[in-house]
Amino acid sequence: MNERYLEDLRAGDRFGSPTHTVTEGAIRDFAREFDPQPFHLDPEAARGTLFNGLAASGWHTAAITMRLMVQGEMRIAGGLIGVGVEGLQWPRPVRPGDTLAVESEVVEVRPSTSRPDRGVVKVRNVTRNQHGEIVFSSVAVLLVPRRHPAGSPA
Amino acid sequence: MNERYLEDLRAGDRFGSPTHTVTEGAIRDFAREFDPQPFHLDPEAARGTLFNGLAASGWHTAAITMRLMVQGEMRIAGGLIGVGVEGLQWPRPVRPGDTLAVESEVVEVRPSTSRPDRGVVKVRNVTRNQHGEIVFSSVAVLLVPRRHPAGSPA
Repeated sequence: MNERYLEDLRAGDRFGSPTHTVTEGAIRDFAREFDPQPFHLDPEAARGTLFNGLAASGWHTAAITMRLMVQGEMRIAGGLIGVGVEGLQWPRPVRPGDTLAVESEVVEVRPSTSRPDRGVVKVRNVTRNQHGEIVFSSVAVLLVPRRHPAGSPA
Repeated sequence: MNERYLEDLRAGDRFGSPTHTVTEGAIRDFAREFDPQPFHLDPEAARGTLFNGLAASGWHTAAITMRLMVQGEMRIAGGLIGVGVEGLQWPRPVRPGDTLAVESEVVEVRPSTSRPDRGVVKVRNVTRNQHGEIVFSSVAVLLVPRRHPAGSPA
């Protein structure tokens, strides 16, 4: 499949991703390095916490979501480059053995007024587990190149 | 230092963190696992991109920021549990060898109206490199327990 430019994207376009299964080992490895708290490290200790059992760090889920987007159907020319992300929410914990997939929906396509060679695209990303339950959602603001810079012969 | 409860936090309170130096190996390891794009993986390939050189994945910087907060001075009772994060921005790339630190400022403290044992605290987190330049900022909405549940004898 070819890479997509700004002209190829419309609000409402949807793109899927492969799936990724999260192991207990991966949850603990990530937590040891980046989020060393009992509910992400130790199944026993996690039982007495708000999570009521081992749960992936929210940043782990966010990072897995990024990987699934990079591997997914959207394929932006030049790569996925975020200038910002809004409204991150983790409505349910990710548990060992959960299988995640991401759906991305284009919310807005806006050519840059100052840079004729690019624009920004807002994409709402929803990560679900194998039961279809939402475990993570956010809106990414991506930098996307134009195939034909504004003002040039198309 | 003791752990902090909702009653211990006020808008304007500031907390520091230790520092963390980001190696080229760590940037590439994280990218291989979570954000496999040329500008995070390969110094040569990165030169011809918008980043103009190897740069850490934004999710890597976010994860390092989480680690520095967990190790930092804020120390919330029960741990750092985010219900959401708003307005993530990465105004400058993180380069190999950069040393990062996080400053957290309490923006809002709000007791829960439905749960007398807790509240939410908004914290603006700013991650800077060794030159004092902002490389990442966001506003985390944290769940924080009360020392004395509302309505109970204090």
